[in-house]
Amino acid sequence: MFVQLSHTSFAMVGIFQRSLRLRTPLTQLSFHNSTSPTDILSSLVLRGRLFPICSPSVFFSFRRTLHTSNDGPKSLSDTPPPRRPFCRVTQEDLTFFRTLLPGRAITDPDLLESSNVDWLKSVKGSSEVLLRPQTTEEVSQILRYCNSRNLAVNPQGGNTGLVGGSVPVHDEIVLSTALMNNILRFDDVSGILTCQSGCILENLSLYLEERGHIMPLDLGAKGSCQIGGNVATNAGGLRLLRYGSLHGTVLGLEVVLANGQVLDCLSTLRKDNTGYDLKQLFIGSEGTLGVITAVSILCPQKPKSVNVVFLGCETFEQLLKTFQLSRSMLGEILSAFEFLDSECLNLLRTHLKLQNPISDCPFYIVIETQGSDSNHDEEKLHNFLEEAMKSSLVVDGTVATEEAKIKALWSMRERITEALTHDGFTYKYDISLPVERIYQLVTDMRQHLGERAKSVVGYGHVGDGNLHLNITSPAKNPALLAAIEPFVYEWTAKFQGSISAEHGLGLKKRNYIYYSKSSQAVALMGTIKAILDPNGILNPYKTLPDNLR
Amino acid sequence: MFVQLSHTSFAMVGIFQRSLRLRTPLTQLSFHNSTSPTDILSSLVLRGRLFPICSPSVFFSFRRTLHTSNDGPKSLSDTPPPRRPFCRVTQEDLTFFRTLLPGRAITDPDLLESSNVDWLKSVKGSSEVLLRPQTTEEVSQILRYCNSRNLAVNPQGGNTGLVGGSVPVHDEIVLSTALMNNILRFDDVSGILTCQSGCILENLSLYLEERGHIMPLDLGAKGSCQIGGNVATNAGGLRLLRYGSLHGTVLGLEVVLANGQVLDCLSTLRKDNTGYDLKQLFIGSEGTLGVITAVSILCPQKPKSVNVVFLGCETFEQLLKTFQLSRSMLGEILSAFEFLDSECLNLLRTHLKLQNPISDCPFYIVIETQGSDSNHDEEKLHNFLEEAMKSSLVVDGTVATEEAKIKALWSMRERITEALTHDGFTYKYDISLPVERIYQLVTDMRQHLGERAKSVVGYGHVGDGNLHLNITSPAKNPALLAAIEPFVYEWTAKFQGSISAEHGLGLKKRNYIYYSKSSQAVALMGTIKAILDPNGILNPYKTLPDNLR
Repeated sequence: MFVQLSHTSFAMVGIFQRSLRLRTPLTQLSFHNSTSPTDILSSLVLRGRLFPICSPSVFFSFRRTLHTSNDGPKSLSDTPPPRRPFCRVTQEDLTFFRTLLPGRAITDPDLLESSNVDWLKSVKGSSEVLLRPQTTEEVSQILRYCNSRNLAVNPQGGNTGLVGGSVPVHDEIVLSTALMNNILRFDDVSGILTCQSGCILENLSLYLEERGHIMPLDLGAKGSCQIGGNVATNAGGLRLLRYGSLHGTVLGLEVVLANGQVLDCLSTLRKDNTGYDLKQLFIGSEGTLGVITAVSILCPQKPKSVNVVFLGCETFEQLLKTFQLSRSMLGEILSAFEFLDSECLNLLRTHLKLQNPISDCPFYIVIETQGSDSNHDEEKLHNFLEEAMKSSLVVDGTVATEEAKIKALWSMRERITEALTHDGFTYKYDISLPVERIYQLVTDMRQHLGERAKSVVGYGHVGDGNLHLNITSPAKNPALLAAIEPFVYEWTAKFQGSISAEHGLGLKKRNYIYYSKSSQAVALMGTIKAILDPNGILNPYKTLPDNLR
Repeated sequence: MFVQLSHTSFAMVGIFQRSLRLRTPLTQLSFHNSTSPTDILSSLVLRGRLFPICSPSVFFSFRRTLHTSNDGPKSLSDTPPPRRPFCRVTQEDLTFFRTLLPGRAITDPDLLESSNVDWLKSVKGSSEVLLRPQTTEEVSQILRYCNSRNLAVNPQGGNTGLVGGSVPVHDEIVLSTALMNNILRFDDVSGILTCQSGCILENLSLYLEERGHIMPLDLGAKGSCQIGGNVATNAGGLRLLRYGSLHGTVLGLEVVLANGQVLDCLSTLRKDNTGYDLKQLFIGSEGTLGVITAVSILCPQKPKSVNVVFLGCETFEQLLKTFQLSRSMLGEILSAFEFLDSECLNLLRTHLKLQNPISDCPFYIVIETQGSDSNHDEEKLHNFLEEAMKSSLVVDGTVATEEAKIKALWSMRERITEALTHDGFTYKYDISLPVERIYQLVTDMRQHLGERAKSVVGYGHVGDGNLHLNITSPAKNPALLAAIEPFVYEWTAKFQGSISAEHGLGLKKRNYIYYSKSSQAVALMGTIKAILDPNGILNPYKTLPDNLR
């Protein structure tokens, strides 16, 4: 069985729980052993020049041309990409892996199942090998070997991603960071934590809370997601409004490149302007440029006082005015401003038996404050609520200061994703827009789809201009999908939004990148990919569009 | 004369004031028309493979090998690098520039002087052409032309840098962003400002304050420095403790690449995870990867209440304990925690006639709070000061709440750089260290140098672990420099510090990069430079070490 290397006492989340959770039938798209090879070419066309590529085992194409958003995306929307001509794992390869990772090179199909399927059960790969390294050196040896053998690798953290980025598409080797879960250092003066990338977010939070600090990010998947995956996907979550993005809070990374080279950018300094800030490249690159093996991150002090408020509004306009008022009156103690619509609350009620803590309203708000003086915080909150009620911005509300009630109120926001999985097949969209636009997309979509959808719900992070638009159907429904896409992307592009605010592109959204990025920018991304991973072994079929391979 | 394109009414800072300021004799290093050419080779050795380079006008070497910190840096420390074989500006080139930029292609040596010399008067180039574009399209045409002609270009913002990064080393064409000073958009709901890169930081601050917001950064050079230069150097400054680095607050950039291509990453969204975050590459790249032409940046709300406290401590240990206490008791309203030593105060007194607002002490602290409720802020501050006095952490202090007094107290910190310029030739070091180490370097250096230095002073940003160590001498003193370097870098490297916390590497520190970055990381930086600027025309001789050209 697996050795769980744990510095902390609560790291027993992993493959076993996940296996259990995934034994329900896999109803969604599945594309095993698709073998249609792409053309094998012997050159890399890079910025107009021909560069010979000398991969040890195979040559293939990285043709790079400029594309506009008019070609490509639509035709490729729901088609799994054909398998690229990577080598297949041989007995010799397995011998190498088993020698390198005794007992940690898994080939038992039952144990592999949970690594082959994403949390939404929407993508299923057919990997036959799961590697569970414990050290950076092991990751380095794995990648050096795979690169020399032209074996594709799917780096995997907690496998909680929502865009099919964390599971194999074909037979990629799964490289799991689950056993790389040691906390390496914590400096309680500076609040800088350094840990291996496989540490689970919630475990880090608990560790830090005992030491007077918190993680600068928090998300619904915290019980399973790993900090390495958080960084690789530039996870946003519930505290971004207050503590900013990982591009600001991550101070250092250790990354193993495709050729096995260890890139040490594991600085533990708040400031370091010596040369280009290379670590930034890997934040949000979804495992396509390197495997993150260690992270150092700046952790805020644990607030002495936390309050959560659950409010109801009659209109989205009033909700936005409440947001403005909260920024002005709660100021520096405002740490989250989240919303959900009444359809979300219906799903929570129907599928998870959660009760509405206030009277029924069209819109609900979850506000969190974090501060250093409970009297001051309560006074600010009191004044804010009084003003919001007096101005008729909110019609009902409840406040929580004790932990159990805080948790209960947060679950109204955090468990929506879970409720949706019980409602049917879910088409998920994670959109950034100017904040005044975010709900308009939900109403427009509802009108556009009419009776074709089961539910069309909106929730998300008002403070970040980030809408989670979710559309359910009793089963997978290509006609419904065709009605949603490209409508949703065109709508978003019209208002200069982002078609993926925090989920990344992964497998599912890769071909829609041109709705949010210029063709020049995408071409440069392709160049960077070709430089860092010339054989394209790292998380293939993800993030970059097919026409840029 | 120059047309000043100004959206705001206070943009008349620029070349004229600077000319006046720089008419004092130039006593420091100067290397005009150094012409020793480097070898001209016809290939680029990149990650072990030979890539033919087809520059339109010249071939030269980009040999890339791995280096350790044991070679290179020391021998190259104080030597200006030889001129690389760029072409020289011809009459034909001037005709092109004059047609493109009528009245804005400057060749008058008097007008060029201020662009050839840095603020510290420590580096003097011999550029004969100053270009002052007003639009991105003009920048694009300039770079496309220079790249095709193999003419080197020195992008220049406010020319307030301290490491010789903002002035030509030889005869590079100066591309000034001073006339690109339009504010393009401001959304007072989201606080997102979009502007051209030549906007002066203080002008942006004034513009925003009228609209209830502030810039997320503030620095002593605000009256001259430009936002494009701030971003290009990843400026830190006085508010980083509260609002984080530019890697978090900059939301979008428009950048013109060396070949003239405009890279549009000018997103105005808080979240956007569609592909790699390319803009991050340009933040802190010191104009060596592209010319930033526009910036969008997240601006915090203007605080309703600001307080500044000036305190005196007997020891640095007590100062650190005061820092810890302030983080705990001031919490979310703490916006700056700065320090200076008594030597700094002596310089302020001697050279600028500033009076110590409190009794003389070995160490001084400047604390700023910014909050949304003046009563709460004052109560927090009162409680904190009471506790700090009661515990004998501080021995004297004064508080300012009104603007004039706040400004006066801040000048004790902000004008130290200016006071140093009057004290003699200044050797400047900008070091990041674990916060408990920062003053130890000052005392060790003082002891190490003994009578050889005139003054050895320390000040900086305690909250960021960032020490400004400055050593003066009556005149330039190679023997003193040899005593300081590599001592200061070795000391810093021993404690895993950064040899440039916020100033960048520029010309002066380029060869010391290995003290803070691994040779693999530096090699990757070189690869990125070669991809984005294959002819190396952008800000040559800067940021990357000579052995990596």
